[in-house]
Amino acid sequence: MAQAHWGCCPWLVLLCALGAWGHPKSVDLTAEDVRNCLISPPYLPVTVVNTTAQLTALRQQMHIQNLFAYIIPETDAHMSEYIGTRDKRRAWMTGFTGSAGTAVVTMGKAGLWTDSRYWTQAERQMDCNWELHKEVDTASIVVWLLTEVPAGKRVGFDPFLFSIGSWESYNMALMNSNIKLVSITPNLVDQAWGSEKPLVLSQPIYVLQEAFTGNTWQKKVSDIRSQMQKHPQAPTAVLLSALDETAWLFNLRGSDIPYNPFFYSYTLLTDSSIRLFVNRSCLNSETLKYLNSSCTGSMCVQVEDYSQVRHNVQAYASGNVKIWIGTSYTTYGLYEVIPTEKLIEDTYSPVMVTKAVKNSKEQALLRASHVRDAVAVIRYLVWLEKNVPKGTVDEFSGAELLNKFRGKEQFSSGPSFETISASGLNAALAHYSPTKELHRKLSSDEMYLLDSGGQYWDGTTDITRTVHWGTPSAFQKEAYTRVLIGNIDLSRLVFPANTSGRMMEVFARRALWDVGLNYGHGTGHGIGNFLCVHEWPVGFQYNNIPMAKGMFTSIEPGYYQDGEFGIRLEDVALVVEAKTKYPGSYLTFEVVSLVPYDRNLIDVSLLSPEQLQYLNHYYQTIREKVGPELQQRQLLEEFEWLQQHTEPLSAKAPHTAPLASLLAVSSLAILGCRV
Amino acid sequence: MAQAHWGCCPWLVLLCALGAWGHPKSVDLTAEDVRNCLISPPYLPVTVVNTTAQLTALRQQMHIQNLFAYIIPETDAHMSEYIGTRDKRRAWMTGFTGSAGTAVVTMGKAGLWTDSRYWTQAERQMDCNWELHKEVDTASIVVWLLTEVPAGKRVGFDPFLFSIGSWESYNMALMNSNIKLVSITPNLVDQAWGSEKPLVLSQPIYVLQEAFTGNTWQKKVSDIRSQMQKHPQAPTAVLLSALDETAWLFNLRGSDIPYNPFFYSYTLLTDSSIRLFVNRSCLNSETLKYLNSSCTGSMCVQVEDYSQVRHNVQAYASGNVKIWIGTSYTTYGLYEVIPTEKLIEDTYSPVMVTKAVKNSKEQALLRASHVRDAVAVIRYLVWLEKNVPKGTVDEFSGAELLNKFRGKEQFSSGPSFETISASGLNAALAHYSPTKELHRKLSSDEMYLLDSGGQYWDGTTDITRTVHWGTPSAFQKEAYTRVLIGNIDLSRLVFPANTSGRMMEVFARRALWDVGLNYGHGTGHGIGNFLCVHEWPVGFQYNNIPMAKGMFTSIEPGYYQDGEFGIRLEDVALVVEAKTKYPGSYLTFEVVSLVPYDRNLIDVSLLSPEQLQYLNHYYQTIREKVGPELQQRQLLEEFEWLQQHTEPLSAKAPHTAPLASLLAVSSLAILGCRV
Repeated sequence: MAQAHWGCCPWLVLLCALGAWGHPKSVDLTAEDVRNCLISPPYLPVTVVNTTAQLTALRQQMHIQNLFAYIIPETDAHMSEYIGTRDKRRAWMTGFTGSAGTAVVTMGKAGLWTDSRYWTQAERQMDCNWELHKEVDTASIVVWLLTEVPAGKRVGFDPFLFSIGSWESYNMALMNSNIKLVSITPNLVDQAWGSEKPLVLSQPIYVLQEAFTGNTWQKKVSDIRSQMQKHPQAPTAVLLSALDETAWLFNLRGSDIPYNPFFYSYTLLTDSSIRLFVNRSCLNSETLKYLNSSCTGSMCVQVEDYSQVRHNVQAYASGNVKIWIGTSYTTYGLYEVIPTEKLIEDTYSPVMVTKAVKNSKEQALLRASHVRDAVAVIRYLVWLEKNVPKGTVDEFSGAELLNKFRGKEQFSSGPSFETISASGLNAALAHYSPTKELHRKLSSDEMYLLDSGGQYWDGTTDITRTVHWGTPSAFQKEAYTRVLIGNIDLSRLVFPANTSGRMMEVFARRALWDVGLNYGHGTGHGIGNFLCVHEWPVGFQYNNIPMAKGMFTSIEPGYYQDGEFGIRLEDVALVVEAKTKYPGSYLTFEVVSLVPYDRNLIDVSLLSPEQLQYLNHYYQTIREKVGPELQQRQLLEEFEWLQQHTEPLSAKAPHTAPLASLLAVSSLAILGCRV
Repeated sequence: MAQAHWGCCPWLVLLCALGAWGHPKSVDLTAEDVRNCLISPPYLPVTVVNTTAQLTALRQQMHIQNLFAYIIPETDAHMSEYIGTRDKRRAWMTGFTGSAGTAVVTMGKAGLWTDSRYWTQAERQMDCNWELHKEVDTASIVVWLLTEVPAGKRVGFDPFLFSIGSWESYNMALMNSNIKLVSITPNLVDQAWGSEKPLVLSQPIYVLQEAFTGNTWQKKVSDIRSQMQKHPQAPTAVLLSALDETAWLFNLRGSDIPYNPFFYSYTLLTDSSIRLFVNRSCLNSETLKYLNSSCTGSMCVQVEDYSQVRHNVQAYASGNVKIWIGTSYTTYGLYEVIPTEKLIEDTYSPVMVTKAVKNSKEQALLRASHVRDAVAVIRYLVWLEKNVPKGTVDEFSGAELLNKFRGKEQFSSGPSFETISASGLNAALAHYSPTKELHRKLSSDEMYLLDSGGQYWDGTTDITRTVHWGTPSAFQKEAYTRVLIGNIDLSRLVFPANTSGRMMEVFARRALWDVGLNYGHGTGHGIGNFLCVHEWPVGFQYNNIPMAKGMFTSIEPGYYQDGEFGIRLEDVALVVEAKTKYPGSYLTFEVVSLVPYDRNLIDVSLLSPEQLQYLNHYYQTIREKVGPELQQRQLLEEFEWLQQHTEPLSAKAPHTAPLASLLAVSSLAILGCRV
């Protein structure tokens, strides 16, 4: 799917960077819906939050710390894609609840920087304490700081909410100025929030059953240690900051943040010890035993309190050690306590890179979850086909029903992200999700885009289908078919091992480019086994690692006609060995998402014989894998639907019909038969 | 073409980095051909150069400068692709004349670092004073220095032979060591060489006639100054170090280095002055007048001596100025005299980026040079077709004849690089060029690869064709056709404006990948108007700038079967606007190289109808553009050959024959006709 915000898997950041998606236009706003700070007194709609008290409290804290400005990003200490309530500091400060944006407060002013998707929302939610800056890059914040902050004054930030990269950006930009950038702990918004900050309830951490794991945690730990030993710079430890790194390493799961089964944690894995930093009260005695937490050997996990990580890492770094980190997910809060000469910096930690390649058991698990996920999606599509014409379905209730269908599947553990259920023009909006209050009715006259996924104990899923139940326009059919061709061309590509996804994603665009169309987002992302739905570092972006056998990635070209409709066709695919005519190390994709595309929207005449053959082969696979599952579950109506929707497509006569069939037709005509 | 060494247009570096091309195997060497330093006394073949005197002289200079080691790269002060005799310092020091490699001399040892293409040559040319290191990266030199150089000692280098990038690499690697990296001028090899160093004769610098230039130098200067004014960091000057930058800016040419019509020069273009650093004696009074060199206004060129550039830039940098440089072509020799805060660093200077986009006059000039170049290549191909079967042609004499044909063309100014004329297995070697002594006979039983180009006053050309005059194997035909498909697929690609070449070059590989084949070099490079044959920053590499209308690039996929044959099909193409079905800013290529491919090697059944249509359209263009030129010049045999070789190709019946023609055949059969 194509929804997320800055963080662990910076998916949407990349989408927006391409900038082709339009601004929200589906909601008809009047002047009364948004604030007007230019008149006196200012006009404030009821949706606005009065933030004067918050600002006063924060400025008191800033005064104590001798700060003139304070930067408040919307992230957590693990660069997570989804953040928990306790980390929604910027939302509390500003009133603005959008998932992307940075606030900066000075002693006299306050500003919010966010991208075009959120400009209207910000004007509806923020009071006139706040300036809205319609930019998102650090440079623009720095320019503002240089104007607003007097020479010699200090600008503070919480180092646990700054990636190493963002710290470097601010630091470089302010280095030769008269302003001093100061790392301050604890977080000043938390200090200001005080007792009003919602209590974070401790969620239990549980062990994933062995049936759902690729290896025991002991095997994984040994594997990472073996990589440490082979490393030319001889690291003595690996420090893990991303939540999925620790969850994967120990085969543990939790529910501290939405959509991802994670718990707040860090790991310091050294050559002779394993230190797990968590809220200890979330581990029951069985889990502690599972972790060998009562012993002290190299294969015993020492459970330390989450809050002690910085102190503990700093103490470890005082020894004769080398700490191996992945810079993408380590915050400046830990980075700054490790002397540079004791760091080994890679973009991704060895755990991140190892996790990216699924072993055969993990592959089988992920495949199985996709079969059941297909059942849920097909049930929903069959239901829509019957109910949309009645005019009783809307985007929100539809998404809820889909969640119910997924919930009935074995090992289900909720959605893997907020469903994008978008009808008509709403599907052309990046990041759109319906709400109970704001949604559109589904109609046979409009296209409907459904991008959704599930968490299952065996795997995480993510699939997008676009459908039309009535008569699509010629342009809609052409655009849909060209998106489909892109999906097919990339899925069936044969490429040398270790090719970067970035280099091959153009195959998903060529059929659109041919006629002057394109899409403004990335073409795919990795996915986990009951982990992140956007699992880095696999995918087709500039910062992804080369493709290797055993990786899973989504393939999701699209097309968006601003104000009219949106198309996206997304499948998850496994990277497998390709059998080539001449020997060599070549790879290709095996699609594991198993839901047919909409026949109503395919213009077969645009497909080459090879594309058509690929598509029919894929349909055959769907029949073989999903058909028996439907039959076994007595979902006979769905089975019938599946058979109809996977009927082999044929090139339309006379344009590309084989000669033999044409001759057959004419013979029959001679004999007076009707065909 | 795919030949060059480290420097101005680092083309071969990129080729080698991909590492798919094999080691030289065509020359059968015996133990007597190479040195043996393991026996006592060592065995030295006659090809070896005794370098004891050179080393003694250099070590004396190093002693005076208190250096323990000295680094000697093979480049010039302008990071040129081809270097003049005066810059062949490493060759003089080591005896090794290969175009790529770095020497390092310590007080006790001497080492040469070079890549696999040159290992044998180095063993044949170097005496036992020298260790051969079969690596090329800075890291490997640094590791050696850290072992060989005692703590506290100094390692020297000539800053004019270090790019900013290579200085940064060495500096970073040695920063925390006990060894000090020291920039030393003048060059110590020159000091050691002394009076024995060949005298550099001053070559005249001449004005390119207005008919061959895109704009007057005054217009170009104004344009660059206007870019300075618009730049947010307000540069006061642009410093140009690459030889083609100054040549292009002033429409001047020279002949100081091989293959490129350049003269040693720098330019410091400020907001109020123009300083040209050259050997003043190479400018005649007419040229001085052309440059307005007798006045002092902002549009008057102050001619300064070449040797004064460092002093002059340093003096200028002491003022309240900002100097805009392209880091790719500026050496550390100038970089180190400009304070960091007075630098504006881009990868490429504004002149480099402006020059990359040819205006309509420059486009017409380059196109015209390619028509005449096609005539020369076609004359050679026709001649080969008649003479190769006689067994009288070899790679070297063939290349010489081609040079003669090019020399007869209007505005000819010599070859644009050393011709790759390679028969059979030699074509599978990277960087192969025949010599008078070492070459292979051309044969009707082998494939022949010809990669060559010319310099003309109106344009620079570069084209590769591969031919077979006998019966190619099925594999050779398949490989050739797949290379051709790659060339066609990339040439006819429609892509959004500003797409990076790096992202689209996979279209040139897909048909090869499909069956497990590939090539280990880049897919193309920019080209100039009587300038560099490898003109950066245009092309399909990671360090090229995005494609824009008016750029020229080569498109040159290949396939190399080690020890057997090599295929490359290279054309030069202009980036033009594409007319798409739906409106948008889209581009495509227009191929300007106009020589047909070898019909004998094309398996038409592998081409899609679209590819076939493209190819026939290209052939039609060749007929229209080259045909009249041949007729006008009474080259009637060549005209006849062209007609034959551009006859439209058709898909073979019955596989893809249109129904209508099949029906026609059967009707005729019924009527008893023979077809």
